Amino acid sequence: MMEQNWSKKEKAIARRAFENAYEKECKDLMNQIQKRASGVKDSADIWRLHDFLTKKRKEIDGKYDYRYSVLILVFARLMQEGWLTVDEIEGLSEDKISKIRHLAEGFI
Amino acid sequence: MMEQNWSKKEKAIARRAFENAYEKECKDLMNQIQKRASGVKDSADIWRLHDFLTKKRKEIDGKYDYRYSVLILVFARLMQEGWLTVDEIEGLSEDKISKIRHLAEGFI
Repeated sequence: MMEQNWSKKEKAIARRAFENAYEKECKDLMNQIQKRASGVKDSADIWRLHDFLTKKRKEIDGKYDYRYSVLILVFARLMQEGWLTVDEIEGLSEDKISKIRHLAEGFI
Repeated sequence: MMEQNWSKKEKAIARRAFENAYEKECKDLMNQIQKRASGVKDSADIWRLHDFLTKKRKEIDGKYDYRYSVLILVFARLMQEGWLTVDEIEGLSEDKISKIRHLAEGFI
């Protein structure tokens, strides 16, 4: 189901949408870090912040996988998590958009 | 050379000095984290902060080793790095203090 052809135009749209989602998620993480860092009161808080960052890094590294063979799934997850909107993937084929939306609902 | 007997009184002094040094170093790290976190501007900065924390945690975990067989060396390093003062180990035997100070100078 996931084997799709991506036109040059679709690839450009996908790349931009992917990068936007990454930037949005990192911006959100940045805010969380600054909030957590300002609340650090003792050594245990420092190591908790480190654990949090380790977990988020692993999660983000795993999630942002730009292979066309998995991109529909990646976009569905990003949409479900709120990092990607339907507007941002406008221009992809109807079939791809439909799959992404359908899967995004399935992730809930 | 490092095999020493530690009296009950010395153990109490050592424990307090060790904990104070740890607290001082963590307090300093906390300030560095807050400064770095407030300056985070993009995703690369986030991962740099994570790398920094990983390195510091490893370094601190390795350094704060409260075994009496290595404590003279640990104290010498802490003194050299500025986390421990001579005042804080007052009450240890002259021999121990002398070794710690001598080694601390050697670490420079």
